[in-house]
Amino acid sequence: MEKQDQLLMKKQNKALVLDIVKNQSPISRMEISKITGMSPTSISRIIGELHQQGFVKETELVTSGVGRKATLLDVCADVLYTIGVELDQSVLKIGIVNYVGKMIALRTFSRNVLETYEETLRSIQYNVNEMISQNMISTKKVIGIAVGLPGSVDYQNGVVRLSDQLKWKNITLAKDLSELTSFHVVIDNELKMKVIAENTVGKAKGAQNSILVGIGSGIGSAIILNGEVYRGESNNAGEIGHTVVDPNGNVCSCGKIGCLATYISEGALIADCRKVKEISTIDEVFSSFRKQETWALNILNRTLTYVALAISNLACLYNPEIIILSGNLIEKIPEVKQTIEEKCERYLWEPIKQNLQIVYSDLGDQGVVLGAAIHAQNTLHELN
Amino acid sequence: MEKQDQLLMKKQNKALVLDIVKNQSPISRMEISKITGMSPTSISRIIGELHQQGFVKETELVTSGVGRKATLLDVCADVLYTIGVELDQSVLKIGIVNYVGKMIALRTFSRNVLETYEETLRSIQYNVNEMISQNMISTKKVIGIAVGLPGSVDYQNGVVRLSDQLKWKNITLAKDLSELTSFHVVIDNELKMKVIAENTVGKAKGAQNSILVGIGSGIGSAIILNGEVYRGESNNAGEIGHTVVDPNGNVCSCGKIGCLATYISEGALIADCRKVKEISTIDEVFSSFRKQETWALNILNRTLTYVALAISNLACLYNPEIIILSGNLIEKIPEVKQTIEEKCERYLWEPIKQNLQIVYSDLGDQGVVLGAAIHAQNTLHELN
Repeated sequence: MEKQDQLLMKKQNKALVLDIVKNQSPISRMEISKITGMSPTSISRIIGELHQQGFVKETELVTSGVGRKATLLDVCADVLYTIGVELDQSVLKIGIVNYVGKMIALRTFSRNVLETYEETLRSIQYNVNEMISQNMISTKKVIGIAVGLPGSVDYQNGVVRLSDQLKWKNITLAKDLSELTSFHVVIDNELKMKVIAENTVGKAKGAQNSILVGIGSGIGSAIILNGEVYRGESNNAGEIGHTVVDPNGNVCSCGKIGCLATYISEGALIADCRKVKEISTIDEVFSSFRKQETWALNILNRTLTYVALAISNLACLYNPEIIILSGNLIEKIPEVKQTIEEKCERYLWEPIKQNLQIVYSDLGDQGVVLGAAIHAQNTLHELN
Repeated sequence: MEKQDQLLMKKQNKALVLDIVKNQSPISRMEISKITGMSPTSISRIIGELHQQGFVKETELVTSGVGRKATLLDVCADVLYTIGVELDQSVLKIGIVNYVGKMIALRTFSRNVLETYEETLRSIQYNVNEMISQNMISTKKVIGIAVGLPGSVDYQNGVVRLSDQLKWKNITLAKDLSELTSFHVVIDNELKMKVIAENTVGKAKGAQNSILVGIGSGIGSAIILNGEVYRGESNNAGEIGHTVVDPNGNVCSCGKIGCLATYISEGALIADCRKVKEISTIDEVFSSFRKQETWALNILNRTLTYVALAISNLACLYNPEIIILSGNLIEKIPEVKQTIEEKCERYLWEPIKQNLQIVYSDLGDQGVVLGAAIHAQNTLHELN
């Protein structure tokens, strides 16, 4: 075997062992040996290296059976940190996340729509630095920043192709923010970040095939296939908002007729409600729902029909094990869950239904920040 | 490194080299070395083994530049064979396919709807044996049979879960046919077989992300992601026929309202046409289309709108590089292609359109048989 092949395999084995300690700790060397099929000698050597690099520590535990003490291994949560950023039209969130995916600090800011690009970057830089020092983290342990935002993102080149919400087009965000902060920066669509959080620490933890549906100012989905984010040819996979649900339906801002978004998005809801009552925010819409005003219930009912339809169509095409629903509507009007489930019973194709769980995100408004930070760790952390 | 890891890597390297010879022949040892990064010594050793096992042969070729003769390698097309079978309500097709994916014999039979399961199996057995001997192939070179059929298939256990068309439920087809023929047997849904053919020798050759859409007695799709068939949790991924395109639309035989199939399938077309004219077969429908009878054109126009919608929705969710259209409608009324493309222009979301090619299958009615045989080779052939 070639020298380089051997080095590669050595690296892979080490990553595998670290992964096992990270996800199944506390765990003994012997158990790792059994799981991996590697010899106890190899495992001890690898653990030795990981210990020296600060990733793994020993911990003692009394086993319940015979009372004998066994040396178990645990991961060091503070060996490295990443920064997750959520950037949206009216909000900026920044979080510091440790090696085991725990948020240890979070700041949320209202963002002025008129804020310039430079102001946004400087705000991120200022707060990241302040948060790092406030939490007494060595800058050397922070391996990078990941930004999640709405829109079409060229994640490989770190360029925001188009974001209607942010009014950005072909913005070299990763490069610019990296130059300003001196950190590595990666970027991606916000729902792709969020589904990574769901798949790592959330409702779809460890699932091989799962879909996150976000219902808010837009409607979109992000997809995990075989344990990894599925992107498609141009990172636009999951664009359920622009699937057509009625070829003779509503006009969409994208110029097509009958896009799903025109029946579900907050903008569409507000516009529909204004035909009945003089309101201007989604919270006013939600308030009318809650007061059970008949006209509002009619509109809500139609919206939930299209939510069920979206779930059904995603399920038919992807045949996933889990669909996770998230977003303002679900979080603020939790009583819609029952209606969605009833409607799904009606719309879901029988052979798909049997293997499908529909669940609700419990990451709340931290999902994007958390997912971004985990994504930064997955992308930027390379074992030596 | 462990002994078993070394053996595994050796096997992988050998498979890689054979793959390169198969797909890029004629090719020199030096070129293979360059592509793989393996040393010329390793390549020579591997080629020696492959030569001895009958997979690879030497061939001489005069290079155009200096006139010097170079020894090039080619694959042996007749080293092994597989049998592909397409089984549908009214047709049975059996083909023998060689190691490089070429169909060397094909038989097509009309199948009586009343034929029993046992009769079908015996018919396959009889014809497979006759075709093998007629083509003077050693039985030892035939490594197995793959059957493609409409319906939900548990491909891992070789069980037909449910096929409405064949009226089969929980049929242990792979086991039964294997016992009867003494060959290894694998089975799968027909469109999954067909997309393998498209991805190996057809219009999507080598594509990483492609979708085959079949429009016939049913409407379905099969999906290649990252170069492999994507199946979902229960092998039902791609069930576009049961996505809902109008929540207040037609009643579907599955019990839901507004399924796409109710607007496109041949049964739906015939039923619609019968409201105008006393016809009973899809060929009569096609004949009315061809005669440009106004009522038929109206129905066709609506059908093509829904075909475009299906393409648009698949594209939005999967963001593939190629969508291949196949089936009776496309093959028998080729003039629909232009209309489909025009309608796609209207329905396809702009950011997805840029990276998408829409093409038409040219495998005709051999696609399933060919794909099944290639699938049998991929599944059953293991290098020693």
